[in-house]
Amino acid sequence: MDNLGIVFLSELVGTAMLVLLGGGVVANVILAKTKGFGGGTLMINIGWGLAVFAGVIVSYASGAHLNPAVTLGLVASGAEEFGNAAMGTTVAVSVVSVLAYIAAQLIGAIIGAVVMWLGYKQHFDAEPDAATKLGVFSTGPAIRSYGWNLVTEIIGTFVLVFVVIGFGRNGDGGGLAALGALPVALLVIGIGASLGGPTGYAINPARDLGPRIAHFFLPIKGKGGSDWSYSWVPVVGPIIGGVLAGLASTALLPILG
Amino acid sequence: MDNLGIVFLSELVGTAMLVLLGGGVVANVILAKTKGFGGGTLMINIGWGLAVFAGVIVSYASGAHLNPAVTLGLVASGAEEFGNAAMGTTVAVSVVSVLAYIAAQLIGAIIGAVVMWLGYKQHFDAEPDAATKLGVFSTGPAIRSYGWNLVTEIIGTFVLVFVVIGFGRNGDGGGLAALGALPVALLVIGIGASLGGPTGYAINPARDLGPRIAHFFLPIKGKGGSDWSYSWVPVVGPIIGGVLAGLASTALLPILG
Amino acid sequence: MDNLGIVFLSELVGTAMLVLLGGGVVANVILAKTKGFGGGTLMINIGWGLAVFAGVIVSYASGAHLNPAVTLGLVASGAEEFGNAAMGTTVAVSVVSVLAYIAAQLIGAIIGAVVMWLGYKQHFDAEPDAATKLGVFSTGPAIRSYGWNLVTEIIGTFVLVFVVIGFGRNGDGGGLAALGALPVALLVIGIGASLGGPTGYAINPARDLGPRIAHFFLPIKGKGGSDWSYSWVPVVGPIIGGVLAGLASTALLPILG
Amino acid sequence: MDNLGIVFLSELVGTAMLVLLGGGVVANVILAKTKGFGGGTLMINIGWGLAVFAGVIVSYASGAHLNPAVTLGLVASGAEEFGNAAMGTTVAVSVVSVLAYIAAQLIGAIIGAVVMWLGYKQHFDAEPDAATKLGVFSTGPAIRSYGWNLVTEIIGTFVLVFVVIGFGRNGDGGGLAALGALPVALLVIGIGASLGGPTGYAINPARDLGPRIAHFFLPIKGKGGSDWSYSWVPVVGPIIGGVLAGLASTALLPILG
Repeated sequence: MDNLGIVFLSELVGTAMLVLLGGGVVANVILAKTKGFGGGTLMINIGWGLAVFAGVIVSYASGAHLNPAVTLGLVASGAEEFGNAAMGTTVAVSVVSVLAYIAAQLIGAIIGAVVMWLGYKQHFDAEPDAATKLGVFSTGPAIRSYGWNLVTEIIGTFVLVFVVIGFGRNGDGGGLAALGALPVALLVIGIGASLGGPTGYAINPARDLGPRIAHFFLPIKGKGGSDWSYSWVPVVGPIIGGVLAGLASTALLPILG
Repeated sequence: MDNLGIVFLSELVGTAMLVLLGGGVVANVILAKTKGFGGGTLMINIGWGLAVFAGVIVSYASGAHLNPAVTLGLVASGAEEFGNAAMGTTVAVSVVSVLAYIAAQLIGAIIGAVVMWLGYKQHFDAEPDAATKLGVFSTGPAIRSYGWNLVTEIIGTFVLVFVVIGFGRNGDGGGLAALGALPVALLVIGIGASLGGPTGYAINPARDLGPRIAHFFLPIKGKGGSDWSYSWVPVVGPIIGGVLAGLASTALLPILG
Repeated sequence: MDNLGIVFLSELVGTAMLVLLGGGVVANVILAKTKGFGGGTLMINIGWGLAVFAGVIVSYASGAHLNPAVTLGLVASGAEEFGNAAMGTTVAVSVVSVLAYIAAQLIGAIIGAVVMWLGYKQHFDAEPDAATKLGVFSTGPAIRSYGWNLVTEIIGTFVLVFVVIGFGRNGDGGGLAALGALPVALLVIGIGASLGGPTGYAINPARDLGPRIAHFFLPIKGKGGSDWSYSWVPVVGPIIGGVLAGLASTALLPILG
Repeated sequence: MDNLGIVFLSELVGTAMLVLLGGGVVANVILAKTKGFGGGTLMINIGWGLAVFAGVIVSYASGAHLNPAVTLGLVASGAEEFGNAAMGTTVAVSVVSVLAYIAAQLIGAIIGAVVMWLGYKQHFDAEPDAATKLGVFSTGPAIRSYGWNLVTEIIGTFVLVFVVIGFGRNGDGGGLAALGALPVALLVIGIGASLGGPTGYAINPARDLGPRIAHFFLPIKGKGGSDWSYSWVPVVGPIIGGVLAGLASTALLPILG
């Protein structure tokens, strides 16, 4: 397999893992009759952080973006190649490779959502509320206001991508970078706890749009609409936030090292 | 002691530690009159993760499988030896060594469950509900349906074994692997939070069957049946999931590195 | 940019990140209609710890004080330079550099609070209680008593600065220091859980005064006063505690190594 | 200062830190009118774990026992010296050094409890229930039964000391050991969650007896008795458990490496 195929597969598997576990923790906390029902927001935050942890572990070959906002943010920061130099699995940044990353992320997210649904099949069936079912797949705002929801998603994704770029700048002597998937997992727990209140922190277009597509097509008992009218917010907001973070990381290069 | 004896003892001690602490946190959260009563699902998830942490610490000599699904998954992935090369405690993979691992795990799990019961003796006595008592020992489904319960256990164990194999593939330069027991502890917290909702995440035949056997033989005051009709699910599901993960790790070798 | 400019910008960016995420988790847990409403004290503690984590990551260039009590505590401990020697971004300790650190921390905290407010704009609008709104920005005592509140802030900040100095003394062979932002994040979670009960653990003059200034000037719908009568406690207490910790670290040099 | 003085001071400071933060989190969760009131068992577990974290950081010079059960367990395991070889702060194991360690731990625990009480002074005053006040200082059983309470403390301390000895055996190549205070903090969170239900996990004679002495002498408003009839259990149980763990670690040397 050539490197483009490897990074494609790596992003696909990693994002599927991310969405399987990330959707799973929401299912566990909000769907009827689960053992984790009512487990609370912190449990969801920790679950999503560890979903990122597991997803990154199985996609080191592609550098584990798992998120179009990360991919585009790295482009904006001036990255010239993606992937894992130590594993010999790098590809040059180009329109083709960027599209491959994003397509793999989206397909992986759809697959992860389908497997998550299978794992919680009986609880989706037992859940009477259609909005709750959709809430397992995709984010929605606590108070709907496209403008302010967009602002929140931009801020959250800016933090994600800016700090992720900071991990790689080695200002700590490389100690955290050596922990691989762990720092970004902690960061995602933090962003969820701190900035997840208004919109449920999509901060990742693939994580939101992929499961929404799965929700649209899957034969989920008693499902309602897929809320397409909101669907652009968790796509556009994260892309703006990620690109701004990439640009900021270049502007602030002296402090990031 | 020869290496087969060492790895046998190591798996036995590690799995006893795992089940002592893992059963313990469930006892603390669900049995009557404990200080942790009503502590919630996240506390159980974290407790089980740290049970794995402690169990792995004391069984490095055998590679700390602590789980027949891990042992069989490693066989399916093509592993040629088990144990800890740095400690000089390796054994060749064979029918004998596989059986030694699984037997040690099962015996260790029984011992761990007995010690846990002693530690919580008064609270088992004070607990009026027989099903709650069994729930401290072994898993049971939130909604009983052998087929779907099996699916959930397969998915959960697949994630466990696939990511554990990913830890060893060094795609992060070895940073996480150097943390020994910590990454797998985090992974188990994540699987519990994300995929534990429908069946309580056995994801380990020894962890479920061993304590069930202990429950069956122990003179637990007011105990009910040991739910043998369900007992095959948390044995068969994890084995299927683990073997599939082992096979998948070989198929996806280019991305795992 | 010269090193004084770099460390100034680094402290500003890091403290803005700290306050954005730290204020954010409080907003998520206490403001009306958020997804994290009622998430509990532990969620706030973890959120603040991870706010420190993210803040430190993006301010390695200045040594990531993010807190005048840390800056002054290091002065009291006899530090001769601030910043990051490995990155070549050090400045000599002087009145100018100390003032630059503190000014950057305060300005950063104001900026972080403004961005946090924008991210939760609708929830500030939807929240009817003025005191709750202020509580997102700045700390206030559970039982008002300037003397005892001061004692609590002194103790909390002493622990913070004394243990932070301990991180750098390499008694563990440097293992924790290599983890960069992680140990201090854990420490802040611990201080919050253990010593946050009476005053909400400002333990940082900039973290409290900066957002209070933002609260005073921002056009927050239905806001009340900024509680200036209490505002000196979370400034003076942390400075005393930090300086005492710096002095103690010198007196206890043989045990800190 | 000679090494005996250094390790004495190191154990004293470390145990004071441990008890200040460990007592503090209980105060925060159970005393009237705190910000953390009702924060739950998991918050207490995490707070105690991070109390260990902070305590260990500031007592590397003595090897950070902070617990007579650890000191005696190490003696039982055949240790020949205490302290930190890398820092040049070792002392030979002898009656004198063992007594110095234990005395320092006890004195440190008393000091830590006094400072904790000062930090929460108003909340002790506001708390109407005498038993709750004592519960902040020392442990008590959920169901009183000296025999079974002893069993639980033995089991919990066995796990603590056995796994702590496992950390030092380097079966993971030293990765966890390099993290210094972190692994034992995680272990203590786990033991608290899993084995804290019946007795509140003293697992440390100094942590329980020191604060009980402080409770006895301090002028705490409306305090009741110090429950001396139970006080021997969290002293004797942990000593038995620690010594058994030390002996077991020798017997199981081949698996611990």
